[in-house]
Amino acid sequence: MPDNKNISADALTKLVSSIFVGTGMSAAHAGKVAEVLVWADLRGAPSHGVQRVPRYVEIIAQGDMNPRPDIKIVKDLPAAIIIDADRGPGQVSMMLAASEATKKARACGIGLALVRRTTHTAALGYYTRLAALEGIAAIAASASWPNMGYHGTAQVGVATNPFSIAVPRGDEPLVLDMATAVVALGKIVHAARSGQSIPLGWALDDDGKPTTDPKKATLPLPLGGPKGSGLSLMIECIASLITDNPILVDTLEGTELANKHRQNAFLIAIDVAAFGLLDDFTTSLERTIKDLKALPRQEDVDEILMPGERGSRELKKRQQTGITIPAATWAEIARVAEKFGVTPD
Amino acid sequence: MPDNKNISADALTKLVSSIFVGTGMSAAHAGKVAEVLVWADLRGAPSHGVQRVPRYVEIIAQGDMNPRPDIKIVKDLPAAIIIDADRGPGQVSMMLAASEATKKARACGIGLALVRRTTHTAALGYYTRLAALEGIAAIAASASWPNMGYHGTAQVGVATNPFSIAVPRGDEPLVLDMATAVVALGKIVHAARSGQSIPLGWALDDDGKPTTDPKKATLPLPLGGPKGSGLSLMIECIASLITDNPILVDTLEGTELANKHRQNAFLIAIDVAAFGLLDDFTTSLERTIKDLKALPRQEDVDEILMPGERGSRELKKRQQTGITIPAATWAEIARVAEKFGVTPD
Repeated sequence: MPDNKNISADALTKLVSSIFVGTGMSAAHAGKVAEVLVWADLRGAPSHGVQRVPRYVEIIAQGDMNPRPDIKIVKDLPAAIIIDADRGPGQVSMMLAASEATKKARACGIGLALVRRTTHTAALGYYTRLAALEGIAAIAASASWPNMGYHGTAQVGVATNPFSIAVPRGDEPLVLDMATAVVALGKIVHAARSGQSIPLGWALDDDGKPTTDPKKATLPLPLGGPKGSGLSLMIECIASLITDNPILVDTLEGTELANKHRQNAFLIAIDVAAFGLLDDFTTSLERTIKDLKALPRQEDVDEILMPGERGSRELKKRQQTGITIPAATWAEIARVAEKFGVTPD
Repeated sequence: MPDNKNISADALTKLVSSIFVGTGMSAAHAGKVAEVLVWADLRGAPSHGVQRVPRYVEIIAQGDMNPRPDIKIVKDLPAAIIIDADRGPGQVSMMLAASEATKKARACGIGLALVRRTTHTAALGYYTRLAALEGIAAIAASASWPNMGYHGTAQVGVATNPFSIAVPRGDEPLVLDMATAVVALGKIVHAARSGQSIPLGWALDDDGKPTTDPKKATLPLPLGGPKGSGLSLMIECIASLITDNPILVDTLEGTELANKHRQNAFLIAIDVAAFGLLDDFTTSLERTIKDLKALPRQEDVDEILMPGERGSRELKKRQQTGITIPAATWAEIARVAEKFGVTPD
């Protein structure tokens, strides 16, 4: 069994960026894709990190991800736009969504960017954080193909559609980023790759029975039953149906689009400063955080953490120590790199 | 033990409306309060129904709810407003929020109404549904005082802040309405009043131990641990901190406002038709619903239900059969009615 790989964030970003340039992406686009993936690894969320690289390369080869997209704003209303991502990398269209929604919010108080025909949007918290760094309270969600049970179904019905909310807090915004599943699908994949078991209640197996084996876990369960699956469905309605690019139906009906990798998304930006109360917001937020952190804790709890706080700490640590990538994941990345004539560090 | 009371929706609305006129509300405001409370009872959600009447009367007497509010738009941006509810009934300011956010969305694609200094907003799904009946995809949430654990705390830290998303579907919009707790606090209250036990995992007791006794259940748990409490905190940030009316801090710090009943809220409206795709939206939505309902079901499941569907059916049934109110709740309402010289039907 080969060793896990330790690599610096910079070297990993350079490597991943070079791989995507190899697939035909512009250096600018490849850099954004690498930036967001490595950010997730830095924050200790490998489920949304560079373990996705081989899959991205695969969907580019299949034609599902377009490495040379013509990304356009196809609808422009005073406070809302639709971006057509032309099947380009989700990182590129989502960064655009964050900046365009922010512009609209500056002008109107609130702004909406709907994103149609994107591919994997990766860690949503990256984009809401990006907006929050500019003083924006941001709400984002993305819609994908069915990979989770709808409440009561014995087969996949909806997607583990994630959503994220971030609010400004200087250079350390508060960032909530959560799946509508009990856990993000990537965590089950990561457990399978790391040879770990999963807790009961995360997913069912092919027979609709609870399982602790991530390799048998084929039906992830929605968070809180009807709540998680209902929220996931609503995200499909807003991200996919308003933009006239429905995803669930094709997979559920087995049309020719059934196995295509497709996503839609949205990002809502609220300009806190536009209401004239940014200073009060910041003061009240710090006071709220201080009060929550001072509360009596449950017996086995060392510290009360804010949304995204653990990830921010991991990021600072890993910027110093580097990122450790499981041997199996590293082997796959190295294989892909070799294919494009890129030499891993 | 007295019998439960069966009463028609109309008679109940009239009774509740008369009680609130008795407290000093205008007939228009009292009618809105009664309408939303009875709507929840019609839908089989007594936790947000007329069982709240005695409490409303109490907070009016305490001065926390203002029966004669001067509700004003205190900030008006191209796509966003802040409504100051002047501590009036939540039903009145939330109906205003829905109509004003809808107006903004018609003009700008998206609209936001922030509501500060309201009182109990009751069933949020009423207002998102109201907007959805006008072709709007609506997202609403409300922020209240701490009554739920924050992930890891042994005391209340955040509120069971509900949120709701509704999308247009003719005269039967799809309406998701959920608390950020494992269950809405009202359900625990209702179980206590009905003499029922609650499942393990809903709440902890004073000693931080799991309990099935709703009367001992003092610490409701957040949905999915850090997800539910993180989402609740984000709702406080958007609804309360942007509007400069923070709620959590006063209770957590025990200030003079600690025991005041206060809420803030927001409603985001997205005008589906403004994107020119309402027909496609409707077609795709029906197709999505049909596909989900046709999926194989888990063993003990009779039917796959859409968000809000069970409630809509109950409403139709109870419009015919009337609403059955538990004896204890009815006795309290009758006592309050008598106080204001109102004769129950």
